[in-house]
Amino acid sequence: MLTLYTAPGSCSRASHIALEESGLNFEVRLVDFARGDQQQPAFLALNPKGRVPALATDLGILTESPAILAYIAALAPSGQLAPVDPFAFARMQAFNLYLASTVHVAHAHGRRASRWSDDAAAQASMAAKVTQNMRDCFALIEADLAQKCGGDWVMGDPYSVADPYLFTFSAWLEGDGVDIAAFPRVQAHYERMASRPAVVRALQAEAALSV
Amino acid sequence: MLTLYTAPGSCSRASHIALEESGLNFEVRLVDFARGDQQQPAFLALNPKGRVPALATDLGILTESPAILAYIAALAPSGQLAPVDPFAFARMQAFNLYLASTVHVAHAHGRRASRWSDDAAAQASMAAKVTQNMRDCFALIEADLAQKCGGDWVMGDPYSVADPYLFTFSAWLEGDGVDIAAFPRVQAHYERMASRPAVVRALQAEAALSV
Repeated sequence: MLTLYTAPGSCSRASHIALEESGLNFEVRLVDFARGDQQQPAFLALNPKGRVPALATDLGILTESPAILAYIAALAPSGQLAPVDPFAFARMQAFNLYLASTVHVAHAHGRRASRWSDDAAAQASMAAKVTQNMRDCFALIEADLAQKCGGDWVMGDPYSVADPYLFTFSAWLEGDGVDIAAFPRVQAHYERMASRPAVVRALQAEAALSV
Repeated sequence: MLTLYTAPGSCSRASHIALEESGLNFEVRLVDFARGDQQQPAFLALNPKGRVPALATDLGILTESPAILAYIAALAPSGQLAPVDPFAFARMQAFNLYLASTVHVAHAHGRRASRWSDDAAAQASMAAKVTQNMRDCFALIEADLAQKCGGDWVMGDPYSVADPYLFTFSAWLEGDGVDIAAFPRVQAHYERMASRPAVVRALQAEAALSV
């Protein structure tokens, strides 16, 4: 059995969608950030980093979105959620790595600036730059999608776990003060994703968790 | 042919070592940060992110350390630089992802704080927290190595591309104000790595590039 520890709206949404797409048996458990669940001993025993997503498997715990996403793809029928060709797979991982190590970090300087400074004025200064940084990141993503010319998905075609991961970050743009309409390919991707049955199911399950 | 674009001492060192370990044919090209090479049009055409490492292959450009490292492992003889088992591979990727998205980011708030704030006082405030954040990160890594009890390498045994990646970050500790001796398993790993012939070759090649 696979158990995904998730917080609605967080980056763990991508792993949740990938599980819905995969056809694998899984369950989700809420990590309630408002209640501080991620810093409770019970959760830290699972993931000492105090972050979501964490995926509990029969073999042990797995953390870090791009690693979890690639593992879900490895368990799903071959080629359904990740390219089989090693170079294409590496390109997909590079895309996901940019989201994890640059875009997520840019976004986190809004609400999580205390990770990097204890000073309130410095934190406010970081938050003030989030819109510009997220806009720069998505300009690069828009150009990347354009280069792939053709195909409905991040890797062109077929669909892969890079798609729910991008979808998750695109949903953060509005809150970060960025108009998604400035990036037509990203916007079209977002709308295409939102109509996939697996995405609808994951968002409904998230909403039910939050109640 | 594989061409690694690298800057001595930067995170691209890990990919350089992995190439040395792999037995693959490759060459390295210096991206001189002091000269601002990474922001020149010639390099931006290769990697619009203006970062190293970038790996030029016959199939195209690859970026982001954990993606490059896993690709080098995929090209090397099976099992030599990454576990073959999908879960063990995912665990290795999760380790590398933590280095990329948390540890590298913690370090970057020293010299690269201008990415996240334009205010000099805020940048200084971020730099002041680097030692604490790096210490926290390495405490977690030390505990992770302890959990693997036994084996000389990050994944326990055998060696993998997680090893040159950790080695690269361990070398940053002194500059970040952290005494590696506080983390005996990390220190032993660093010393073990430093004596590997492939590591010696990579560091010598780096030194020659910098002249």
